[in-house]
Amino acid sequence: MTLPGTNAQWIYAQKPEGSLGFEHFKKRQVTIPELAPGQVLVKVRALSVDPAQRMWMNMETYRPMLQPGEVMACYGIGEIVATNAQGFAIGDFVDGDFGWQEYAAMNPLDLVRRDGTQTLEHLIGVLNITGLTAYFGILKIGMPRPGETVVVSGAAGAVGCIAVQLAKLAGCYVVALAGGEKKCQWLKDEFGADATVDYKAGNVLQNLKAVCPNGIDVYFDNTAGEILDACLTLMNLAGRVVCCGAVSQYDGGGAKSQPQLPGVLIRKRIRMEGFIVFDHYGQRAQAEKNLINLIRNGKLKTPMDVIEGIDNAPQALIDLLAGKNTGKMMIRVS
Amino acid sequence: MTLPGTNAQWIYAQKPEGSLGFEHFKKRQVTIPELAPGQVLVKVRALSVDPAQRMWMNMETYRPMLQPGEVMACYGIGEIVATNAQGFAIGDFVDGDFGWQEYAAMNPLDLVRRDGTQTLEHLIGVLNITGLTAYFGILKIGMPRPGETVVVSGAAGAVGCIAVQLAKLAGCYVVALAGGEKKCQWLKDEFGADATVDYKAGNVLQNLKAVCPNGIDVYFDNTAGEILDACLTLMNLAGRVVCCGAVSQYDGGGAKSQPQLPGVLIRKRIRMEGFIVFDHYGQRAQAEKNLINLIRNGKLKTPMDVIEGIDNAPQALIDLLAGKNTGKMMIRVS
Repeated sequence: MTLPGTNAQWIYAQKPEGSLGFEHFKKRQVTIPELAPGQVLVKVRALSVDPAQRMWMNMETYRPMLQPGEVMACYGIGEIVATNAQGFAIGDFVDGDFGWQEYAAMNPLDLVRRDGTQTLEHLIGVLNITGLTAYFGILKIGMPRPGETVVVSGAAGAVGCIAVQLAKLAGCYVVALAGGEKKCQWLKDEFGADATVDYKAGNVLQNLKAVCPNGIDVYFDNTAGEILDACLTLMNLAGRVVCCGAVSQYDGGGAKSQPQLPGVLIRKRIRMEGFIVFDHYGQRAQAEKNLINLIRNGKLKTPMDVIEGIDNAPQALIDLLAGKNTGKMMIRVS
Repeated sequence: MTLPGTNAQWIYAQKPEGSLGFEHFKKRQVTIPELAPGQVLVKVRALSVDPAQRMWMNMETYRPMLQPGEVMACYGIGEIVATNAQGFAIGDFVDGDFGWQEYAAMNPLDLVRRDGTQTLEHLIGVLNITGLTAYFGILKIGMPRPGETVVVSGAAGAVGCIAVQLAKLAGCYVVALAGGEKKCQWLKDEFGADATVDYKAGNVLQNLKAVCPNGIDVYFDNTAGEILDACLTLMNLAGRVVCCGAVSQYDGGGAKSQPQLPGVLIRKRIRMEGFIVFDHYGQRAQAEKNLINLIRNGKLKTPMDVIEGIDNAPQALIDLLAGKNTGKMMIRVS
């Protein structure tokens, strides 16, 4: 069972040593894949653009390291257009690691069925890795209490701006860090951040201290590096550091020294905890229900940065790593 | 109300820049203190020797930094010999920060009443900061499950050898790190460590890997530095690092780079948590009861390294920081 037409795909061509560029990818047209018994053919509708994609090139993570020659890995939302498998029908919406391509032959065990009545933007953003990472990271790892001070770095990013809003909804004083005055203003106006710090303006520790008169109780870390160090300096006793990302280290930045670790964790009884959203998928249905309710009631905004066409996939990822997006970046494929 | 006789005390004379030495303390004889209204006079019976004392000289911790000219701070066990306070009687045993001296005038709020039927060794060791640190650190922060691999550094120390035994009692495979073959043998013979690594022999990562075929689930960290780095390399998904001490950094060692932090916490979903035993004193009575039961049933050994006389206090602390003790070090004062 083969569909007519071709399948555009981006191959991961070589491992980047420094910053990501076009030379690390190569586009090609292939035939639409033949289905093996038990497989389904997915027409990719939208692809997610995630900082983690850059990390997959660097090292083994929760998935094997990407190898040059493979289709560039990428989560997305697709629609089933042909099936050799029980339990899936043409027209079903599914979620999976389809890669940067228009069609993917998939095994059913690698797919999650999605609710096709939701928009593609929600299916790829707030009701997917992005929104759920913010949800579980803030609520299950950070555990903020009303009145506490929560600091979010990378706050204008896809996860960050949901994290800021969830911390506000939890009754906290929320300080958002982002690069540039424009993003900072947007975080105040759109998401109700109580204060912001433009990390590109320098003096991060001093500026953060000025807007955290009661210290920091929860730090939601998307960046690591200098911002993490400043937050550790200002943490209160029994503070929590939610280790969500280390974007300052992904794109050629390398590991920064964190000279206060681990001593500061002992002195201040800090819990510093990494997590991966998948660990919490046992509670995914409840989390999605809560997020949908918040959106319906106008309490949660879900900004999207939509790029049109799979041709723009490399540019989208390069821009994301340079912090050019505001909100969740998505590639609309078809 | 003044007792006849004098009070020998050690003054903290100057802040050490590198390793601790005799020149940082000065002995003097003063009169036994006069009691203010509401105070009690404590005759110090035993003093605890703790690595944390060295940290108190370096920086503000959970207590203000020590200042030259003060009596050297030290926890101990004493007996009340005179009282101007309600609620305490002569002969009561109490616990407090008496300092390196024979007599201390104390406010009742700074004292905890102790059970005088227990030995001084138990009152200062397993039923005090040492034993309770191991108890809460392993059981509440580390949360080991039967069959997991637990690694303990500084295992021949006061906290470490209790931690090793509690992890064994929790059904774990336990690897103990200590300095020197003699200590390692002792940890196997006396406390049932399943394997040991002599960190002074070099190749810590390689030697640790050889005895951790299933990786590491819980690392009880008393040292930080190179050993922490090796353990982070070998940690399993969802591992826990109990940040109990950083003795490699206390005595002039300075902060070591921990290049894997925080990235490794994200990739492996590790929880790394500092704690101070005092945070858990709400559950102290239950913990002491459990520890006493284990001792009575022959399931927990409590090795002591007893130094005779307050004159030897500086030498005791210097030796402790050099790793010369086995088990809990205590100074018997009177």
